[in-house]
Amino acid sequence: ALPENGRGASGRRVIIIGGDGYCGWATALHLSARGYAVCIVDNLVRRNYDAQLGLDTLTPISSIHQRVRKWGEVSGKAIDLQIGDICDFDFLKDVVVNFQPDAIVHFGEQRSAPYSMIDRAHAVYTQHNNVLGTLNVLFAIKEFKPDCHLVKLGTMGEYGTPNIDIEEGFLTVTHNGRTDTLPYPKQGGSFYHLSKVHDSHNLAFAARAWQLAATDLNQGVVYGVATDETTADPALINRFDYDGIFGTALNRFVVQAAVQHPLTVYGKGGQTRGYLDIRDTVRCLQIAIDNPAAPGEFRVFNQFTEMFSVNDLARIVSEQGNRLGLDVQVKSVPNPRVEKEEHYYNAKHTKLRDLGLEPHLLGDNIMDSLLNFAIINKHRVDRNLINPAVDWRKAGSASGTMTAAAART
Amino acid sequence: ALPENGRGASGRRVIIIGGDGYCGWATALHLSARGYAVCIVDNLVRRNYDAQLGLDTLTPISSIHQRVRKWGEVSGKAIDLQIGDICDFDFLKDVVVNFQPDAIVHFGEQRSAPYSMIDRAHAVYTQHNNVLGTLNVLFAIKEFKPDCHLVKLGTMGEYGTPNIDIEEGFLTVTHNGRTDTLPYPKQGGSFYHLSKVHDSHNLAFAARAWQLAATDLNQGVVYGVATDETTADPALINRFDYDGIFGTALNRFVVQAAVQHPLTVYGKGGQTRGYLDIRDTVRCLQIAIDNPAAPGEFRVFNQFTEMFSVNDLARIVSEQGNRLGLDVQVKSVPNPRVEKEEHYYNAKHTKLRDLGLEPHLLGDNIMDSLLNFAIINKHRVDRNLINPAVDWRKAGSASGTMTAAAART
Ligand SMILES: NC(=O)c1ccc[n+]([C@@H]2O[C@H](COP(=O)([O-])OP(=O)(O)OC[C@H]3O[C@@H](n4cnc5c(N)ncnc54)[C@H](O)[C@@H]3O)[C@@H](O)[C@H]2O)c1
Ligand SMILES: NC(=O)c1ccc[n+]([C@@H]2O[C@H](COP(=O)([O-])OP(=O)(O)OC[C@H]3O[C@@H](n4cnc5c(N)ncnc54)[C@H](O)[C@@H]3O)[C@@H](O)[C@H]2O)c1
Repeated sequence: ALPENGRGASGRRVIIIGGDGYCGWATALHLSARGYAVCIVDNLVRRNYDAQLGLDTLTPISSIHQRVRKWGEVSGKAIDLQIGDICDFDFLKDVVVNFQPDAIVHFGEQRSAPYSMIDRAHAVYTQHNNVLGTLNVLFAIKEFKPDCHLVKLGTMGEYGTPNIDIEEGFLTVTHNGRTDTLPYPKQGGSFYHLSKVHDSHNLAFAARAWQLAATDLNQGVVYGVATDETTADPALINRFDYDGIFGTALNRFVVQAAVQHPLTVYGKGGQTRGYLDIRDTVRCLQIAIDNPAAPGEFRVFNQFTEMFSVNDLARIVSEQGNRLGLDVQVKSVPNPRVEKEEHYYNAKHTKLRDLGLEPHLLGDNIMDSLLNFAIINKHRVDRNLINPAVDWRKAGSASGTMTAAAART
Repeated sequence: ALPENGRGASGRRVIIIGGDGYCGWATALHLSARGYAVCIVDNLVRRNYDAQLGLDTLTPISSIHQRVRKWGEVSGKAIDLQIGDICDFDFLKDVVVNFQPDAIVHFGEQRSAPYSMIDRAHAVYTQHNNVLGTLNVLFAIKEFKPDCHLVKLGTMGEYGTPNIDIEEGFLTVTHNGRTDTLPYPKQGGSFYHLSKVHDSHNLAFAARAWQLAATDLNQGVVYGVATDETTADPALINRFDYDGIFGTALNRFVVQAAVQHPLTVYGKGGQTRGYLDIRDTVRCLQIAIDNPAAPGEFRVFNQFTEMFSVNDLARIVSEQGNRLGLDVQVKSVPNPRVEKEEHYYNAKHTKLRDLGLEPHLLGDNIMDSLLNFAIINKHRVDRNLINPAVDWRKAGSASGTMTAAAART
């Protein structure tokens, strides 16, 4: 376990934007349990996406008000809750002015690539919500708490799949006899991933122009559901998405295995990405907060612990599933995305390790507990939601595409 | 002169978004004169910025309706005029469906770096207008005219001032023994420049995912005012901005010299950029249209002809001004921007030359005619508008900053 950090334990003040979401909720509890003063900011739009598209988390989640109340009972710690949209600057300003954060953790974006590719309206919404919301956060810090450390969630997907090693945010290039260290070139593969690319560029500029302290966490794909705190009471359970729009690779496979649906490998399955356990997400966030960027510094950490191809994951899930008595099939489905299905991939991820991260690797234990978790909850699985629902090439402008996308699932 | 292109002269259909603006108006007339079927799309917001901030072009410009009417009389050619906002997708869709363009030239963005740095609202407006407007253009092409070639204006300012040579859009990197050609790293220096960086990333993705044909013109700073067509009648004259928000370097110096205001060099004046004559802007656009990108190709041209430092320009303007009997002083003012004032700068710009561009270089002739033009119009100069009006470091969130900015000018 991480050593308790003196300053953290002694009441460092942290706003968590997106604190009702998958990563945000786990992080809020992790920090609150360790003595940080936590304020959750969320407009609950993620719950609304589910309503719009007829999706649901595998795990029945309580309202954010119930969650926060229950956490107070269980832990004796109060979490401040501010419901509102960071695109509404007056709201955000009031929160920052009143809470006076030492750090703002910014998870609060539309985070599904397929959602951003449903149609024009969803693409525009995603870039509006994410890019302009983040601009507001930058201005709120600059104006009202300039020494506040911004810890912003990006994604490994910003880099795409270049044919060279992926470094952590920057690349030192020698070209025509001269050398410079430049932002690592970005090649986002959806309007969602691109929104993160845009955010990163805006952050780098704001740090430089205004001497803000900013950390960009290029996170890999998160798997798992339980953290020490979310398991303390059923009302604290985290969300677990398995559908074709919000579900992420490993979590989806585990649910597919539990309901004996063939694992849906997109195309050839050679797509390789970085992955991490949600128990490491919360630790990475704590590490970033405890070791803040310097004023004017724009810092990038690649936040994942292991690389897997989709075929690797399918193999791991089948082997472990079959060992548990499931009959796991693997099926290649036409790839709804535009991406390379066989490619070089070698991404660096040492900076968080150097600051003390001790990873939970994907071993039999976590696979077992994840599969058992899915089996226990399998009565809640809607098989209609499992297949990919959004095709990159078909993203259109017609209104009503959203309904169509839901119907297609 | 450029050879008339057969297809162009035979009626290639071109939508010019931002056709009421400085580059757009000159381009619209240039193409119309050469037999292209031109449709101007503009929401006239540029005229509104002037109204908001109390600015005005040096040259009294006619309404767009009068301009288009007069052009019809003078040339015998009709230009289609569609007033509307490309952020309104229904409007844009109708224009594309009805006009069926072979090419869309997209100038239609908020294009002032200082304007984007006035305050939070102007930063958010700029990225909203530019990034989401361009997303709409991409979707309109994809849905309603997928073989239409998009010619999008970017800026050389997207690259910033790296310590290595700037290539045209892409950089071939060898790193740890492997080689790839990647998007050139971008380091925009204002929320405006960043909006163009965001656009470039969105374009690259759309070209790849949807097989669109796209050309990104990373344009340098444009100077000059007269083109063959805009001088054909006083009602056709182009706008000429000299104020601290919309005026660009050389044009500003020329007006300052004409009214015997010291040339306002920001800081040390070593800031080096690419420049081009507006007569070359219109030719570059024609070249890009006549030599379209292939389906799926995202192509980047650096569109400028010469590099100058601010001190170079101050020297050129003083020398030529003094020769014309003006007493030109040069003054260093505190730099309102956050930028390097001494730096390496070597940007490539061969692709448009290779396609036939014969540049108008900055010689005594153009300097003379620009200075004389400014002298003739100097009774229209408002000296209050000359100094820099927006400080990068002071960009705030308070509403009313806009009025303050205008008052500061
Ligand atoms: N889950 C992953 O595998 C993963 C991987 C890489 C990066 N990330 C990034 O981590 C962050 C959190 O991801 P997650 O899986 O927890 O997503 P999530 O959708 O579960 O949580 C995001 C939360 O932000 C809130 N939100 C969105 N827009 C908001 C706005 N304008 N104002 C206020 N609140 C808003 C939503 O209501 C939601 O509760 C995201 O930025 C995501 O891009 C996640
Ligand atoms: N002028 C330069 O030196 C220079 C240098 C590099 C790049 N550029 C780029 O070239 C393009 C044209 O520059 P310019 O100097 O002619 O600018 P401009 O402001 O004179 O013209 C832009 C036009 O676009 C219109 N417009 C803006 N938003 C719109 C929207 N949402 N819908 C419809 N119309 C809209 C404005 O009303 C204006 O008429 C811009 O994209 C600019 O960034 C210009």
